[in-house]
Amino acid sequence: MARLAILAGTGRLPVELALECPEALRVGFEGVETALDGPVERHRFEELGALFDTLKAQGVTEVVLAGAMSRPPLDPARFDAYMQATAPRLMQAMQAGDDGLLRFVISLFEEQGLAVRGAHEVAPALAAGEGLLTGPQPEERALADADRAAVILSALAPHDVGQGAVVAGGLCLGIETLQGTDAMLRFVAETPQALRRGGGGVLVKRPKPGQDLRADMPAIGPDTIARATEAGLSGVVLEAGRVLILDREATLKAAEGAGLFLLGRSFG
Amino acid sequence: MARLAILAGTGRLPVELALECPEALRVGFEGVETALDGPVERHRFEELGALFDTLKAQGVTEVVLAGAMSRPPLDPARFDAYMQATAPRLMQAMQAGDDGLLRFVISLFEEQGLAVRGAHEVAPALAAGEGLLTGPQPEERALADADRAAVILSALAPHDVGQGAVVAGGLCLGIETLQGTDAMLRFVAETPQALRRGGGGVLVKRPKPGQDLRADMPAIGPDTIARATEAGLSGVVLEAGRVLILDREATLKAAEGAGLFLLGRSFG
Repeated sequence: MARLAILAGTGRLPVELALECPEALRVGFEGVETALDGPVERHRFEELGALFDTLKAQGVTEVVLAGAMSRPPLDPARFDAYMQATAPRLMQAMQAGDDGLLRFVISLFEEQGLAVRGAHEVAPALAAGEGLLTGPQPEERALADADRAAVILSALAPHDVGQGAVVAGGLCLGIETLQGTDAMLRFVAETPQALRRGGGGVLVKRPKPGQDLRADMPAIGPDTIARATEAGLSGVVLEAGRVLILDREATLKAAEGAGLFLLGRSFG
Repeated sequence: MARLAILAGTGRLPVELALECPEALRVGFEGVETALDGPVERHRFEELGALFDTLKAQGVTEVVLAGAMSRPPLDPARFDAYMQATAPRLMQAMQAGDDGLLRFVISLFEEQGLAVRGAHEVAPALAAGEGLLTGPQPEERALADADRAAVILSALAPHDVGQGAVVAGGLCLGIETLQGTDAMLRFVAETPQALRRGGGGVLVKRPKPGQDLRADMPAIGPDTIARATEAGLSGVVLEAGRVLILDREATLKAAEGAGLFLLGRSFG
């Protein structure tokens, strides 16, 4: 039988995953804060060999990387034998940027026979479902805006940009770049009213097609709804099954309170 | 022989065009402020028929729309016979947004046998030339960033988005939307340092392929350089011949003073 380990980074995701998967082994890392409580196994990135030994001893067969892990400074003097042997490949991977490093780390787990899963696979309840999740039924115009935003995101996908876009009345007001969804929504909120064609507008959030959801899973939470409200949007559209809703109760309540629709949709 | 009329909107472009084309007839519009001085023919949008008569009487064969023209409220009671006859088509065009309206206005001039030119056609000296215009020789890394920004803009072009993008160290930090280049550069300037991969970065500015440069010509000026400097960029790349440099002396001086390169390039 499969046994799961949650490798906990910062933020709410590891906490919510642990609630969904109470049998999972909980692993934290020195230098990475986590809100996960209960019996957490603490490990060091410098001693991945020891981590693999622990996971196997505990009968773990699959792992999920949950929450952000900043890149802590590694102390080579503390490397275990496994890490010493891995160092040359690791150095190469570090030069490929955060995404490249994360892909490499995933491959290290796989080499050990451990399956790496996405949060949406081990806890599907955390992802957006299909259909209207809360708020008023979206108007035709809002659905047309959502379609246009989705088309823009698809065009960008091969270029590794764009997990989100805002379109209002047919006009593109924001495309998510490195700074993330909240920063984009703050930017949209500052749009001079004279430039906007009436009110409303829709945020579409989805992974890039081909994005490895085991390494980087898009998510929204109550803050996203607050920013969307400040940006004058009428709703938020999430790709069903592929975007997480963190703190779901508070998120849905915030959307409902603000009169925003929250819609799960499948994209082609 | 061709005779040009400059139809003056706001901003510096009509002034610089008049300097480059001293023989041109200067036309201003009620309700549209213009910095253009000298003998300016004043007309009303409600009396385009009268404008056409004037242009023909003066031997004008081509016109250039220069600077922004906000959409002033039209008073139908003042419509001349031409405008009365044109009103139904005009109403339709107004519903197609600013771009659609501008394309329609261009077609009205063409119907009268007047050629509508872009500023870069009647005054090529105002457009960015090819090669290094000022500042230090760009590094390989900056040229790679410029290539990536250009690829992102090309992907967006069919969707009528994106006259500019910022890439730094391979990371996309900004994509221009409705709010314009300066707003995007302010957004980039606010990027937390921790998200950036070292310093530098490049702004690429180009028209969308297929964009009608007679209606909407991208331009930079000293303010663009100031914003690019605040955003920590190492340079600005303009599509040669297709982006205007307004207030050229001040713009080049600002770039040189800030140590930014300004480069004109052809894009495929």
